[in-house]
Amino acid sequence: MRILVLGGDGYLGWPTAMHLSARGHTVAVADNYLRRRLCREEDVDALYAVPDLNERIATWQATSGYTIRPFIGDLKDWDFISEVFTEFTPDAIVHYAEQPAAPYSMLNRKAATLTLENNLMVIANTIFAVREFCPAAHIVKLGTMGEYGTPDIDIEEGWLDIEHNGRRQKFLFPRQAGSLYHTTKIMDTDLLWFYVRVWDLRVTDLMQGPVYGIFTDETGSDEKLLPFFNYDELFGTVLNRFVVQAVAGIPLTVYGKGGQTRGYLNIKDTLNYVRLALENPAQQGELRIFNQFTETFTVNELAAKVQNAGTALGLEVRVQHLENPRVEAEEHYYNPQHTGLLDLGLQPNFLTADVLRSMLGFVTEHREKIVTDRIFRKTTWK
Amino acid sequence: MRILVLGGDGYLGWPTAMHLSARGHTVAVADNYLRRRLCREEDVDALYAVPDLNERIATWQATSGYTIRPFIGDLKDWDFISEVFTEFTPDAIVHYAEQPAAPYSMLNRKAATLTLENNLMVIANTIFAVREFCPAAHIVKLGTMGEYGTPDIDIEEGWLDIEHNGRRQKFLFPRQAGSLYHTTKIMDTDLLWFYVRVWDLRVTDLMQGPVYGIFTDETGSDEKLLPFFNYDELFGTVLNRFVVQAVAGIPLTVYGKGGQTRGYLNIKDTLNYVRLALENPAQQGELRIFNQFTETFTVNELAAKVQNAGTALGLEVRVQHLENPRVEAEEHYYNPQHTGLLDLGLQPNFLTADVLRSMLGFVTEHREKIVTDRIFRKTTWK
Repeated sequence: MRILVLGGDGYLGWPTAMHLSARGHTVAVADNYLRRRLCREEDVDALYAVPDLNERIATWQATSGYTIRPFIGDLKDWDFISEVFTEFTPDAIVHYAEQPAAPYSMLNRKAATLTLENNLMVIANTIFAVREFCPAAHIVKLGTMGEYGTPDIDIEEGWLDIEHNGRRQKFLFPRQAGSLYHTTKIMDTDLLWFYVRVWDLRVTDLMQGPVYGIFTDETGSDEKLLPFFNYDELFGTVLNRFVVQAVAGIPLTVYGKGGQTRGYLNIKDTLNYVRLALENPAQQGELRIFNQFTETFTVNELAAKVQNAGTALGLEVRVQHLENPRVEAEEHYYNPQHTGLLDLGLQPNFLTADVLRSMLGFVTEHREKIVTDRIFRKTTWK
Repeated sequence: MRILVLGGDGYLGWPTAMHLSARGHTVAVADNYLRRRLCREEDVDALYAVPDLNERIATWQATSGYTIRPFIGDLKDWDFISEVFTEFTPDAIVHYAEQPAAPYSMLNRKAATLTLENNLMVIANTIFAVREFCPAAHIVKLGTMGEYGTPDIDIEEGWLDIEHNGRRQKFLFPRQAGSLYHTTKIMDTDLLWFYVRVWDLRVTDLMQGPVYGIFTDETGSDEKLLPFFNYDELFGTVLNRFVVQAVAGIPLTVYGKGGQTRGYLNIKDTLNYVRLALENPAQQGELRIFNQFTETFTVNELAAKVQNAGTALGLEVRVQHLENPRVEAEEHYYNPQHTGLLDLGLQPNFLTADVLRSMLGFVTEHREKIVTDRIFRKTTWK
């Protein structure tokens, strides 16, 4: 299959491109290095340097024998995205090309505007490009479990049958997100759902939880193939940040009571989930939605797991409850379904002591590169 | 009250500005003449020429003694919107400043992109400006009944209590719109609802149906004070278009079976609804939603009303069913609630034979200006 990965330089985009390439798919990546630029501007570079796409692709070709075609440019620019779609002619598109950080989207007006404009105009151009150049192509869009927020009812996979005054209809599951970033993902779903109905697009919208991890089957022994590993409060996801805090000997920062529950997954599961969605495409005119996570934990549970694994390695790991800088429920009901991807055959990777030991060990090798004042920047939602 | 009308040059914006001004409010308008530019580009100018805001304001001052302050510029531009908010310091904002036409939003990629970018970036800047310059100000936002689409269940006013697996919660009423324009209004609601929860904004979101009519209590006898009157399929709403077709002696164009039902209102009711919302503001931290229409009709019923009124005036009015260029249900359940604004005291204006006679008479006076090939441009949703 010819697969175009939008945002192919990102934490998940690059490992996805390698993963699909290693399974014999013809892969191209498009990226404008937005995440790199934002991290540099905010002085929150990742733990180790990551080569640019040309160097990554050369390394991948040297180690695997497979190649990946790069397109460097801004997908908001119609001339650029047209060129990508006409030159590569994809059968499927994996769309990661969004500003991916909730805290960044809440940083200030400029960051909020960038998030809104980037994310909305890229999904729009993606839809218009598929419509114009490859209307039968399958769009696999990364959404987020955060679209649902933390409702007081069970979370179904994307849809809900509603009965009201004796009449029934199936609707998109009600959505109310906890950050502007997550709200742009709701808007993406609004837009996809509209054009699926009008233009019979073929779309899978993956409601993904927070991802953790560094290694995939393709990263191998060459560190040049590793994804970004951010550990700051802007771009670093919570478990990755906790691992760095444990290694650096600073307390794990839990916001508020720590009862916030989310559905987590290993980066390896992201790749398998996305591949399974590609290999089992949605129908023309279908918006198919899967909830993409493996296990649910509270933040307190995550902190305890890192503490236990760190202590076993001889680290002294403390946990500190900070005043919550976000506007969110710190204790809440959370019961999301996630059977769709398992039904497609996923063998999940769980957050075991082994996984944590491996992450802690790797970060320890890079411990001298940790810049501790990157970890907590006091970005508040208010 | 100091009221800032965003989009104050529009079909509804200008009459709203006069209406509030005539009731003693201090009014400013902001507009970038986007609608004028788009109508000119698409060769669908309104029935009669409308003077620019400076001339309208001078005329209004001469006839009423009241003045209105104009700000000409693009609300997507932060420098401009900051200047408006710091110079005028509103107590309330009425936000009409969006690309308002569903068919225009479906015309082509360029029009779609403009609609999405304009509408989203203006609502975002409005939110950020309120947050920065006047956090207690009341935002009265024009949404649309089209956000709900035509669900097979009763439409409540904005919210729905959902019971699922024995648990209950109140959510935004499920939304699925019939055009990109309507979808941008869903996104506006998503964005407002997020920032209401995080920043305690004070918002009323008015889900308005299609508006008809020309005259308000303030338009008086000076034609320079009249709003735009578009009769084309892009910017002309259905009843206004039917009236022009009746006068021009060309068949009323009903799309498909004509069973499409919507909630309509006279332009006079728009002004009263908006004023009532302003005079009875939402609470801080509240997203209050009203369904803003007066009567529901099918398109066939509207056509029959125009036909009857036209025949009584000696016109020969035919009705023609065209193949539907839109993707929409032509026969559907439709039962929307709309008690909120009536509870605030609105005295509604119904679509009587008198109202139609007055519209037909006025358009007859301008009949030589009708350009018939503006009426149907074959804009399709597919």
